[in-house]
Amino acid sequence: MIIKTQVVIPSLVRVKPGAIDRLGLYLKREGHTKAMVVVSQGMIPEYLDRVRRGMGEQGVSCIDWIEIGEASFETATKLFTNVRKETSAMIGLGGGKALDVAKYVAFLGRLPYYAVPTSLSNDGFSSPQSSLTVAGRRKSLAAALPSAVVVDLDVCKDAPRPLWLSGIGDLASKLTAIFDWKLAFHQVGEPVDDFAALLSDATVHQFLARPSFDLEGAQLLASSLMFNGIAMEICGSSRPASGSEHLISHALDATSARPRLHGLQVGVATYLMSLVQENQSERIDGLFNETGFWRQIESDPFSRAEWRSAIEIAPTIKDDFYTILSQDGAQAEAISLLDRDERLKACFGP
Amino acid sequence: MIIKTQVVIPSLVRVKPGAIDRLGLYLKREGHTKAMVVVSQGMIPEYLDRVRRGMGEQGVSCIDWIEIGEASFETATKLFTNVRKETSAMIGLGGGKALDVAKYVAFLGRLPYYAVPTSLSNDGFSSPQSSLTVAGRRKSLAAALPSAVVVDLDVCKDAPRPLWLSGIGDLASKLTAIFDWKLAFHQVGEPVDDFAALLSDATVHQFLARPSFDLEGAQLLASSLMFNGIAMEICGSSRPASGSEHLISHALDATSARPRLHGLQVGVATYLMSLVQENQSERIDGLFNETGFWRQIESDPFSRAEWRSAIEIAPTIKDDFYTILSQDGAQAEAISLLDRDERLKACFGP
Amino acid sequence: MIIKTQVVIPSLVRVKPGAIDRLGLYLKREGHTKAMVVVSQGMIPEYLDRVRRGMGEQGVSCIDWIEIGEASFETATKLFTNVRKETSAMIGLGGGKALDVAKYVAFLGRLPYYAVPTSLSNDGFSSPQSSLTVAGRRKSLAAALPSAVVVDLDVCKDAPRPLWLSGIGDLASKLTAIFDWKLAFHQVGEPVDDFAALLSDATVHQFLARPSFDLEGAQLLASSLMFNGIAMEICGSSRPASGSEHLISHALDATSARPRLHGLQVGVATYLMSLVQENQSERIDGLFNETGFWRQIESDPFSRAEWRSAIEIAPTIKDDFYTILSQDGAQAEAISLLDRDERLKACFGP
Amino acid sequence: MIIKTQVVIPSLVRVKPGAIDRLGLYLKREGHTKAMVVVSQGMIPEYLDRVRRGMGEQGVSCIDWIEIGEASFETATKLFTNVRKETSAMIGLGGGKALDVAKYVAFLGRLPYYAVPTSLSNDGFSSPQSSLTVAGRRKSLAAALPSAVVVDLDVCKDAPRPLWLSGIGDLASKLTAIFDWKLAFHQVGEPVDDFAALLSDATVHQFLARPSFDLEGAQLLASSLMFNGIAMEICGSSRPASGSEHLISHALDATSARPRLHGLQVGVATYLMSLVQENQSERIDGLFNETGFWRQIESDPFSRAEWRSAIEIAPTIKDDFYTILSQDGAQAEAISLLDRDERLKACFGP
Repeated sequence: MIIKTQVVIPSLVRVKPGAIDRLGLYLKREGHTKAMVVVSQGMIPEYLDRVRRGMGEQGVSCIDWIEIGEASFETATKLFTNVRKETSAMIGLGGGKALDVAKYVAFLGRLPYYAVPTSLSNDGFSSPQSSLTVAGRRKSLAAALPSAVVVDLDVCKDAPRPLWLSGIGDLASKLTAIFDWKLAFHQVGEPVDDFAALLSDATVHQFLARPSFDLEGAQLLASSLMFNGIAMEICGSSRPASGSEHLISHALDATSARPRLHGLQVGVATYLMSLVQENQSERIDGLFNETGFWRQIESDPFSRAEWRSAIEIAPTIKDDFYTILSQDGAQAEAISLLDRDERLKACFGP
Repeated sequence: MIIKTQVVIPSLVRVKPGAIDRLGLYLKREGHTKAMVVVSQGMIPEYLDRVRRGMGEQGVSCIDWIEIGEASFETATKLFTNVRKETSAMIGLGGGKALDVAKYVAFLGRLPYYAVPTSLSNDGFSSPQSSLTVAGRRKSLAAALPSAVVVDLDVCKDAPRPLWLSGIGDLASKLTAIFDWKLAFHQVGEPVDDFAALLSDATVHQFLARPSFDLEGAQLLASSLMFNGIAMEICGSSRPASGSEHLISHALDATSARPRLHGLQVGVATYLMSLVQENQSERIDGLFNETGFWRQIESDPFSRAEWRSAIEIAPTIKDDFYTILSQDGAQAEAISLLDRDERLKACFGP
Repeated sequence: MIIKTQVVIPSLVRVKPGAIDRLGLYLKREGHTKAMVVVSQGMIPEYLDRVRRGMGEQGVSCIDWIEIGEASFETATKLFTNVRKETSAMIGLGGGKALDVAKYVAFLGRLPYYAVPTSLSNDGFSSPQSSLTVAGRRKSLAAALPSAVVVDLDVCKDAPRPLWLSGIGDLASKLTAIFDWKLAFHQVGEPVDDFAALLSDATVHQFLARPSFDLEGAQLLASSLMFNGIAMEICGSSRPASGSEHLISHALDATSARPRLHGLQVGVATYLMSLVQENQSERIDGLFNETGFWRQIESDPFSRAEWRSAIEIAPTIKDDFYTILSQDGAQAEAISLLDRDERLKACFGP
Repeated sequence: MIIKTQVVIPSLVRVKPGAIDRLGLYLKREGHTKAMVVVSQGMIPEYLDRVRRGMGEQGVSCIDWIEIGEASFETATKLFTNVRKETSAMIGLGGGKALDVAKYVAFLGRLPYYAVPTSLSNDGFSSPQSSLTVAGRRKSLAAALPSAVVVDLDVCKDAPRPLWLSGIGDLASKLTAIFDWKLAFHQVGEPVDDFAALLSDATVHQFLARPSFDLEGAQLLASSLMFNGIAMEICGSSRPASGSEHLISHALDATSARPRLHGLQVGVATYLMSLVQENQSERIDGLFNETGFWRQIESDPFSRAEWRSAIEIAPTIKDDFYTILSQDGAQAEAISLLDRDERLKACFGP
């Protein structure tokens, strides 16, 4: 007997220009002829056509084609109850919400899940959780990694710049997350997985070494985000990808009048926490400067009052999760930096 | 780094008289102070009191106490959305429906799940699936094994006789299930897991050797059913526990005007299929005779018409699942046995 | 990617009369055409012929045929350096020594290993260790479970009675081993695996329920010993199979002028420790009485002086291994029982 | 019960200047107070002193201190038989031979193994195999990954240049290895693990982006080689690290009058095979040019006759291992390139 205890990591990974045209081929090769597709509302029609054509040419029929505008547990379970018996694969196509819903429906039904992001705005396309609202409150629900990741670099390269920048912000957060993890080791003995930390670090530096908005930049960003999502699954913890900066972003999601893109919030919080941590702030500042991240934030500044409140709420967001914000004075320091640091001052309205 | 890929099998197993009084203690020892309890509608009040008292004495508070009358996916997901944040353990107390719902809610929320069956009517209390209706149709949904199994032998000993007999019928079905599995190997090359088959076989014979309705009988039945549920998880397939006899029972669930207890249906189907398989029919007959299983069935006979129809539907229930019923003539043989075999004749009304 | 972390448990298990005639067939089916065979010195020629004939008929050639008289690490590594490149399977045929050597050579070379015991004198045929001498001292070296277990019940049924009784003694030891495990939990917090303990218990009772020296007895003994060996692998500890009674036997192996069969030593030590534990002594006595185990021991009694010394050495054999012998007074009690208990008195010469 | 099936990947990883001074501290923290140390013959005395001093200050005693001049299975098993009972950790300190022997002794004895390379000449310091001679023939024996990897960047930075260049050659080989893997997929259907391939690729490019012989270069090379060794363990195959270029190097090891450093042979073979594959030859040439790899080879050229013969033997080295050399004409093409390509011409004497 073989006891089956496999960590299933995406077995099909295609990161290249034109990948969405070949999605049908990838499905066909794995023996799928009937798929359910969940797409983002407002998706560019050309992309839909290309996916449809590719599937058609390979004889893969799309037995359901669902547009998703919001990512809720209730929507996902409703969809699950309607999955047709003959469905053999689930496809998530588009942005975070469509992908989170598709991932969760596939998880409930134990269906192979193909993640096909059209932008690289965060690491969710290859993470083992789904971010869904449950009874109106956003939660991160346990799910499974996709069995296939298909990233069309041409498509992602042409994604709106704010989405790119969001992905860059999410990637930068690994630097403060790893710092918080090591801090938790020294302060409360939480075990650090050296290898996962190293992998997480390495993936960031890969992109940092040459940030650009061309095909090569998209490739580096895609693989960096993907390794990161997978690192979480491998070590069974969100620690390699998420620290105090994510707590602030979660707090904003719960309280802000108008939450922004995940990675934009996270990126600013990363810079802020790096100052409190005294950890690579210049490097982060340089990256944000070079890529236009700062300009993006300045063009639509955050509310200083909301951030003050978010910093206060942040440490209560997760139980037993030590970060720099658990230390005396760290919250006060962070709040005062909103008014003192030149970069940050430009990021906030009243 | 340690890559976490553990098959988690119940780590706490208590099979003894008075176990429900100690449930609070078991929770406390594992560090749980706030639990949600899902109980069967109509549960004997004394049992509820004993569980409550035991929890109270240990300072474990029950933050939700839910009565369940039907086991549906919709009920389970609704409950999940209402799980309070401070809940650290989920308890299923009573019969199959309460346990299936509790197991699924715990699975969605990644909560430790304590299965506390008050009867031994089938192997569901330690299986990795939940049997729930989805949009009105009964399905077996992927979930996880309980992290704790607490069987109070006194309570189970005093369970109504039909529930006992249902458990015995479900246990007997392993004999025909294993036969079907080996048949599938010889006919279509489906790999048989010798070890799982042997474990499944061994557990049945343990009870067959001394079937009785006393404490020892309850202990043997409980451990036999439990090993069986776990065998499925270990080998990643329902094959060691389910063959053609289960297909017939599933067909009855979907079509019968009044489906009976799972194990009563399964037990009769087991005897029927054993005749078609020419496999240990006398042994099964002897067990059913000695334990009063036949008398129970005769006291409330099945509908012959419904069974004829169920035998016809059975092979279509699962895709790619070869059993004796996949063979030419087997269905006709089974149908004719309903009228020819003396034992079976007594089991059916018109 | 699929991270491969499988616990490989024997995938081919054949426990039936005439199995050695079919060994060639089993090898052939798995694609092996060239095997190395390690056999016990003095093996009954008929058995060798039958294995050879079966292999020949299936076109499986035996490219090396090694006779083993002693089980040492040095012999095993020497054999390993001589394994021919084309060898695709390793067979151990006969008694414990041949099987331990074959298992270890297979482990070093990552070859599929077929265990073909000709008696059931202990649980080594399906355990994940090899008992070998290293520089003259017996040790239990980490190896792997066999990939196939082939037990010819006719052959094992005809094995000399002392070998049978040794197997029965080894099986009985699970009762004291489980007791010691639970004791270690209560005294020093060593975690007990309830499920493994239950499986270990269940396998003993299966045989206890009907001990006999016929085909059915051989079948029960074989499967009980096999489940036990596998339980160790599954829970990653020798605890379900080995407690204070094994420590005494190990001490005897290291110091006795003439060590006896493993299970004979272990059986007597089991009865002795059960008295100290006040744990099921009558049950064990009954089993040993009924099967002639006591008569066997009495026909060739142990040295009382050696046992006294072994009991004194026993607690030092393994580090961090709490048993009843770790308790104050337990050793003295055990030693005095050698002179006081009627059963034991008959087991010892001066 | 938790079934233990973990892939153990180094849980302690320290890659930084001065790490060897802290080895004692790392041992102490994990609870080790008695270690066995296997060191390379001719190791720089200062390094030995620093390790000894660090261990002494932490109260970790070195109970055996073994110098190793050759890496044979026979030496390793001999050492194993002499491991003292109280040894709780094994340390390999120095070059490949010492590390291969220490790794194997630790594997046989299930001891935690600390790999402390003093140069980065290949990926063996974090691979799951040991390269040992067995009866005089070099083989790659199954072992386990180290539980700790301690790389002192200052020490590795100061390693002789040829060792550095060997590491660079070994790293470059991933480019041709991945190509061969994908070729094997298209030609004979061998499954490619996209993720492992991507990880392997990513690690090479990390170093390619900035090859240098300073601390940062050492860090990049160390982590690249380490991820690579680990990728093999994770996907259970040597494919991500080894293709046709390694076959040629293995053939040279078996036949050459004077085999060179593993990575020097592999590097030249990598460039050669990249020409046959028409795969990134310029990139490899650029790397070898920039780092002085070519100059190193030219200073001590290979024997053209030996390489011709090695290319002919290469495809027979491993069974069922498809590479570009399995294709018609590929060997002839490779042999002719030795005389035609300008770079290669300079690498060979007669």
